[in-house]
Amino acid sequence: MGKCVHSAVINAPVDQVWRTLRNFHDMSWTKAIESLEPVGDAKADQVGAKRILNGAIHETLLALNDIEHVFRYQITDGPSPISKDDLLFYYGTVSVLPVTDQNASYVSWITHFESKNDPVTQEFCDPFYIAFLAHLKEYFDAPPMDRGRLG
Amino acid sequence: MGKCVHSAVINAPVDQVWRTLRNFHDMSWTKAIESLEPVGDAKADQVGAKRILNGAIHETLLALNDIEHVFRYQITDGPSPISKDDLLFYYGTVSVLPVTDQNASYVSWITHFESKNDPVTQEFCDPFYIAFLAHLKEYFDAPPMDRGRLG
Amino acid sequence: MGKCVHSAVINAPVDQVWRTLRNFHDMSWTKAIESLEPVGDAKADQVGAKRILNGAIHETLLALNDIEHVFRYQITDGPSPISKDDLLFYYGTVSVLPVTDQNASYVSWITHFESKNDPVTQEFCDPFYIAFLAHLKEYFDAPPMDRGRLG
Amino acid sequence: MGKCVHSAVINAPVDQVWRTLRNFHDMSWTKAIESLEPVGDAKADQVGAKRILNGAIHETLLALNDIEHVFRYQITDGPSPISKDDLLFYYGTVSVLPVTDQNASYVSWITHFESKNDPVTQEFCDPFYIAFLAHLKEYFDAPPMDRGRLG
Repeated sequence: MGKCVHSAVINAPVDQVWRTLRNFHDMSWTKAIESLEPVGDAKADQVGAKRILNGAIHETLLALNDIEHVFRYQITDGPSPISKDDLLFYYGTVSVLPVTDQNASYVSWITHFESKNDPVTQEFCDPFYIAFLAHLKEYFDAPPMDRGRLG
Repeated sequence: MGKCVHSAVINAPVDQVWRTLRNFHDMSWTKAIESLEPVGDAKADQVGAKRILNGAIHETLLALNDIEHVFRYQITDGPSPISKDDLLFYYGTVSVLPVTDQNASYVSWITHFESKNDPVTQEFCDPFYIAFLAHLKEYFDAPPMDRGRLG
Repeated sequence: MGKCVHSAVINAPVDQVWRTLRNFHDMSWTKAIESLEPVGDAKADQVGAKRILNGAIHETLLALNDIEHVFRYQITDGPSPISKDDLLFYYGTVSVLPVTDQNASYVSWITHFESKNDPVTQEFCDPFYIAFLAHLKEYFDAPPMDRGRLG
Repeated sequence: MGKCVHSAVINAPVDQVWRTLRNFHDMSWTKAIESLEPVGDAKADQVGAKRILNGAIHETLLALNDIEHVFRYQITDGPSPISKDDLLFYYGTVSVLPVTDQNASYVSWITHFESKNDPVTQEFCDPFYIAFLAHLKEYFDAPPMDRGRLG
């Protein structure tokens, strides 16, 4: 089994960060995702919702928790090394917790997978999560009026 | 703070029990709920989905987890002692786990609340959960063709 | 990654079952463990406690939770296919929850591992957990005076 | 029910922070605790371990988890408003998680209680946790050779 474990402190309260992250059909806060195509009829906060990232990575929402501010999803297909033939499973968990002494948020993005070549899979995936967290930081560090331009 | 803690073993595999319980807009498996009215546009598996039970109890879906087979909801209004004036908060968590040595399911229905009079609230609510679990048992003990009649 | 997932209903209240299971230095309730040798100075409820089962299986206590009735441990060495050369990791989690409608307990014994040959490891380990749960059942079904003899 | 929720980022890796916090018989890293007296025979990492803080606050270790880096404890007696006559229950949970993008740690110190006057209890307790997290920060910001002097 392989895993990617990434986390960062975001300079915004939990409510704001969670509202941004929980939308399964909008990742305009990160330049690492150039296109996001919703698939099927399910809404962005409906368990079972599907999306295709960058025209290639297929993901399904598996759990959404508005009390504890956590969502879980699955990659079901993508380019090598995360194609459906490469993967036995690939699960991700994204969680937002408060950093009370600075009115900020702690965000963790953790994935577990079993694939044909786990170190190669990790090497392919790690840069995405590092970029996601860096972009999320920039997004909330930008003045609110500029946030729309980051997409 | 008060709580209701109820659990039972249901003679059916986790998949079947979970599929029945996760539908926030269908409780036809229990006679204790005579009417269920969906409120708003949200689907039965969309976090934020709303329902009114027995014409009086207002509930909202807060979390749905298809991996661990758990959902959480909130009572937002109802008759005394669970009216919105009586309640500071009322959360429920329903979880399904496998009982592997008999291909059955362990279902727990646990609520936490803070209300004007917690013992009275508990006394009002306990019988619902006892009935829910008893009816769920009956529902899965009945031959599949008869299940529709229990609603 | 491989896993063993086993669970059963034990005819005794959570307190009694938990008191029996939480003792890391006593497995006399199962005939599947003929000898248990504590290793080192740590007590049976001290995180880091060690034991050798059947003269061959080395285990360490990693977590003990008296509120939620859970403990976690690690196998660090044993005969093939769970020798230290075979294992990348081997974790076990034992949990006790109440079955309120029959004053009984739901016990789950779940392990996750990564080893040289996961199916072989699972085939080797599954029978232990099946036996543990069957013996735990027998132990609590026996009249209290007879329990000492099962060791 | 009342609660205190506090968290902070500590400039040290999880291992170091956890090693410091998990010792139930040493709080020399915070000036807010002037004396800590172990009670009974249990070791500092033995579930059930007891301590008296500042000659007045009695605490018991309830759970210790070396995998997820969490411990839980209970206040059983203290000065008003946390004397045993004031409290129905008082539980604390301390957790350490990695902040990977800066090789730091996210520490949360959360308590739940039910007492004669929950707002008064919270007002009494909040300053302790604020101090604990501020001192923990200072402790790890100090050069290692100076850490002993903070006790």
